[in-house]
Amino acid sequence: MDNFIINSMWVLIASVLVFLMHAGFAMVEVGFTQAKNAVNIIMKNFVTVSVGVMCYYFIGYGIMYGNDFLGLFGTDMFMLINRPAETAGISFEVFFFFQAIFAATCATIVSGAMAERTKFISYIIFCFVATLLIYPVIGHWIWGGGFLAEKLHFMDFAGGTAVHAVGGVSALAGAWLVGARKGKYKNGVAHAIPGHNIPLGALGVLILWFGWFGFNPGSTLDITSPATAHSAITTLLSGAAATLSALVWSTVKYEKPDAALTLNGALAGLVGITAGANVISFCGAIIVGLISGILMLYSVEIIDQKLKIDDPVGAISVHGVCGIFGTIAIGLFSTAEGAEGLFFGGGFSQLLRQISGVAIACSVAFVISYITFTIIKKTIGLKVHEHEEVHGLDAIEHGISAYIKLH
Amino acid sequence: MDNFIINSMWVLIASVLVFLMHAGFAMVEVGFTQAKNAVNIIMKNFVTVSVGVMCYYFIGYGIMYGNDFLGLFGTDMFMLINRPAETAGISFEVFFFFQAIFAATCATIVSGAMAERTKFISYIIFCFVATLLIYPVIGHWIWGGGFLAEKLHFMDFAGGTAVHAVGGVSALAGAWLVGARKGKYKNGVAHAIPGHNIPLGALGVLILWFGWFGFNPGSTLDITSPATAHSAITTLLSGAAATLSALVWSTVKYEKPDAALTLNGALAGLVGITAGANVISFCGAIIVGLISGILMLYSVEIIDQKLKIDDPVGAISVHGVCGIFGTIAIGLFSTAEGAEGLFFGGGFSQLLRQISGVAIACSVAFVISYITFTIIKKTIGLKVHEHEEVHGLDAIEHGISAYIKLH
Amino acid sequence: MDNFIINSMWVLIASVLVFLMHAGFAMVEVGFTQAKNAVNIIMKNFVTVSVGVMCYYFIGYGIMYGNDFLGLFGTDMFMLINRPAETAGISFEVFFFFQAIFAATCATIVSGAMAERTKFISYIIFCFVATLLIYPVIGHWIWGGGFLAEKLHFMDFAGGTAVHAVGGVSALAGAWLVGARKGKYKNGVAHAIPGHNIPLGALGVLILWFGWFGFNPGSTLDITSPATAHSAITTLLSGAAATLSALVWSTVKYEKPDAALTLNGALAGLVGITAGANVISFCGAIIVGLISGILMLYSVEIIDQKLKIDDPVGAISVHGVCGIFGTIAIGLFSTAEGAEGLFFGGGFSQLLRQISGVAIACSVAFVISYITFTIIKKTIGLKVHEHEEVHGLDAIEHGISAYIKLH
Repeated sequence: MDNFIINSMWVLIASVLVFLMHAGFAMVEVGFTQAKNAVNIIMKNFVTVSVGVMCYYFIGYGIMYGNDFLGLFGTDMFMLINRPAETAGISFEVFFFFQAIFAATCATIVSGAMAERTKFISYIIFCFVATLLIYPVIGHWIWGGGFLAEKLHFMDFAGGTAVHAVGGVSALAGAWLVGARKGKYKNGVAHAIPGHNIPLGALGVLILWFGWFGFNPGSTLDITSPATAHSAITTLLSGAAATLSALVWSTVKYEKPDAALTLNGALAGLVGITAGANVISFCGAIIVGLISGILMLYSVEIIDQKLKIDDPVGAISVHGVCGIFGTIAIGLFSTAEGAEGLFFGGGFSQLLRQISGVAIACSVAFVISYITFTIIKKTIGLKVHEHEEVHGLDAIEHGISAYIKLH
Repeated sequence: MDNFIINSMWVLIASVLVFLMHAGFAMVEVGFTQAKNAVNIIMKNFVTVSVGVMCYYFIGYGIMYGNDFLGLFGTDMFMLINRPAETAGISFEVFFFFQAIFAATCATIVSGAMAERTKFISYIIFCFVATLLIYPVIGHWIWGGGFLAEKLHFMDFAGGTAVHAVGGVSALAGAWLVGARKGKYKNGVAHAIPGHNIPLGALGVLILWFGWFGFNPGSTLDITSPATAHSAITTLLSGAAATLSALVWSTVKYEKPDAALTLNGALAGLVGITAGANVISFCGAIIVGLISGILMLYSVEIIDQKLKIDDPVGAISVHGVCGIFGTIAIGLFSTAEGAEGLFFGGGFSQLLRQISGVAIACSVAFVISYITFTIIKKTIGLKVHEHEEVHGLDAIEHGISAYIKLH
Repeated sequence: MDNFIINSMWVLIASVLVFLMHAGFAMVEVGFTQAKNAVNIIMKNFVTVSVGVMCYYFIGYGIMYGNDFLGLFGTDMFMLINRPAETAGISFEVFFFFQAIFAATCATIVSGAMAERTKFISYIIFCFVATLLIYPVIGHWIWGGGFLAEKLHFMDFAGGTAVHAVGGVSALAGAWLVGARKGKYKNGVAHAIPGHNIPLGALGVLILWFGWFGFNPGSTLDITSPATAHSAITTLLSGAAATLSALVWSTVKYEKPDAALTLNGALAGLVGITAGANVISFCGAIIVGLISGILMLYSVEIIDQKLKIDDPVGAISVHGVCGIFGTIAIGLFSTAEGAEGLFFGGGFSQLLRQISGVAIACSVAFVISYITFTIIKKTIGLKVHEHEEVHGLDAIEHGISAYIKLH
């Protein structure tokens, strides 16, 4: 009974920390894109939170945590009907609160990658698909009693796959199908379109980091577990290590300490440790962070310049690539008893489980997203008119400017 | 003893969350007004926090929670002299901390409605009246053992009336008496004066939402009560529902998804659920939110265009109208045993109590505010000189510009 | 066992609050300086967090809290090897987490004072020295079993000296040696170089204040202690009092309510109460705050105009001067049993201990910083080229602009 209350309190507070991440995402996306689309981005973020919470309450939670059907999806507790008093040792209401705030995160990642040229209504439609179907179904497989966890013994502590990798591959599908922003590629050469407010973007990153201390440590659902404080430290170390590796690598590579890459480096490290924050050692977390920072940097280059997919904020690299890497890293660095990673005497077994699991989850998420975006593209369209893109989504779609100058 | 410590810890943390709301208010007010008055708004927010805390420590707390005199006001514990060790099951110091941070909120609401043309010193004087008299006295009636709660059985969980409705009607008195900004009304037609930084305003809204999870759930003062997590969820759902209703309604009505109205929609939903967050069901919270979003939208139109009262940030509609609606909504949607609302088999009795209570509180707050502002207007004046308004309060009153451009 | 869990949870949450202070510092420094150097400041803040955390994990923690050697420094637990399960009644991991987030704060203070003209690499080098040597060693003397606490009975609750005064005198050494910004002094007369974004600076101050409720109350490491809530209230009161004293004094002195001084006033009060937040009474906290606000104001004037040391954000005055004052104020206002201050019947004994302790800590920090900066200056140089300063560190050092205008 005692632990019930203490743990419920802990998860309630962690949920509130996670909530502020929506402010972090909003500021990162606004800061790293152009001023003429800032209102549109803000609107997408508010829609994401609101639609996400509503969809999750009515349908999503039931699919994710309802009574399991063949390991594929849940079948009851829609609108929280017939809810128990307690779940996972904490108050059911607190558990739902934590999950509902998580739910909206996945779609937000997609909004960043498709920023500056996607129709508002088209994004909203995807948002429904993401929070009614993609996230809850894959979430069920991983956390809700589905086959990935139960049959495959796939491990994903706080959503390295369920949130970040899934969000990242959906972002890949979306950014690919919507096409690049006008002016991004000229004669096949990528041109940087710099963000309009780096301080705001930096504020967003620090707010996200702050919220991540609810996202990861909160995912134990148990303050009495040593894994809670452990995952707070691994989250801190991995973020710091990735910031430094991205800073140093970008300085060496481009001869100047690059701000966008350093800030994204911090996020890369945070995403990288999310799947295994509870089972990776402190040194392991530093290694995961160092690799995540560099991996993100190369991934941004490849996606931007080789694949020619236009991802204004680097969301595919940060969330997709580092989410996948971090999930697989459990198979290398895990110190969990019975699920040791390759480097800790566990052989290849956990590594293969991780690779299989993340491959299944990402494939399914990619396919559903690809189909969804294709249908939208063929019907109402994905991209705004060129005229709108040039003048800014704010002016045309929302009839407003984000900024009015002093004089 | 155990619950004493756990609950004290919970309320201490909730208080800290509420504190950040002052940053949220500041960013909302700055973002939704003109660049030339940003410093003035920031200064008002800092004054509000500081004056509020000081007044509440020396006088306000005693009036609100001191030994009751005829159900009207408290009479001791000024400067916390003769304080007990424990109040309401938690540490007295924590209880005071929570209340002191709340106290400044009421005046802040007024600062938004009177922004861009009110003399700095005049606002400061009102700030003293609000935190020495208006808020503590009405707070006493509702929460401190006064007649509204004890005789009328009026319910206001977290300040839908005590903070928001009271702040909103004071804002109405202030905005009315100070008059409109120059250029707001030409030939009797209202002209929109758009805010200068929507992303900052959006950040403010998300920070406020974050803080609201301390404001509402913290108001149980009891983490062991199921009402705590319940009110976290109703706060989430109502905010989300109101965001969507304001978004959809404004899109239908004005043909474009309006940013200012959508952001204010979120706040409207949060205000709307504040009074009854603990006793309104999840579905009820969604209904309250949906209505709050639309109500705010019409209220803004009526106040702006019919009543011709200039409220730059929509504070009267968001806090006043939705605060009143939310308080009355308890009489419709309450599921509390013995105080069921009209739709839950309780008949009209609680509804009438709610209407009476909010009418009394708002009338008194309006009258005191009206008198205060009238006296200020007749003596030192409420409004800055036209020259100052045109050039901006920052340049003339503070001798500084909020922004220096890059080149 | 019970208190172990509750207190670990409390300190974990407090640590997370403290983490957001890095966002606060970043916004204050960016807001109060010029737009052309905003990216550089952001980069310094990210480096500070990352380098600070890494250095502290590998070396710093061991020096600060390892097995004591002659009262001077710790000698083990580098990389947390041979760590116990429990420290100071809470989880070791939580204790480390709290300390690691604190560690980076000290260097951040220096970055503000040296802003807008210091080489990026030179600051990074100092950052290593600060988090490997200065902070851990002095921290050991005060909190880690070293001679200041054990022999001298010097009191510093939450880092008025260990963090703020030490950071402030290091900032003095740095700002002095790097020299003034171009254009700051013409013919020996100081010219104000106003900050480019006051709202962002104000947001930073409010975020810092928010984080301070983790910084001070969290420093009890014990939620069951009445000192926790007590220090929350003293932190609130002192910040509020200093805001008002700086506002009133600056209005009287300069005839206008000055925004930069009012905002710095809030910080001055928060720094001022940090050393004694647990042992100074509520009235004492108000007095400490009132004095801190005014002290900061005069200190800024003296440093800026008499000493002609260019400190763009006032960090030396806010953190150095008020940190020293607040530490000494314990000797005046302490109500701690056996360590009463002068005004509470304790005579001069605690006052002398406080003066001696802060003098020793600050002298050592100043000397190490002075030597470090001198070596850097003689080798790779401290200051950027004049050309770079004129065009901005962002353009030359980072090849990017913080802001892209709307059109």
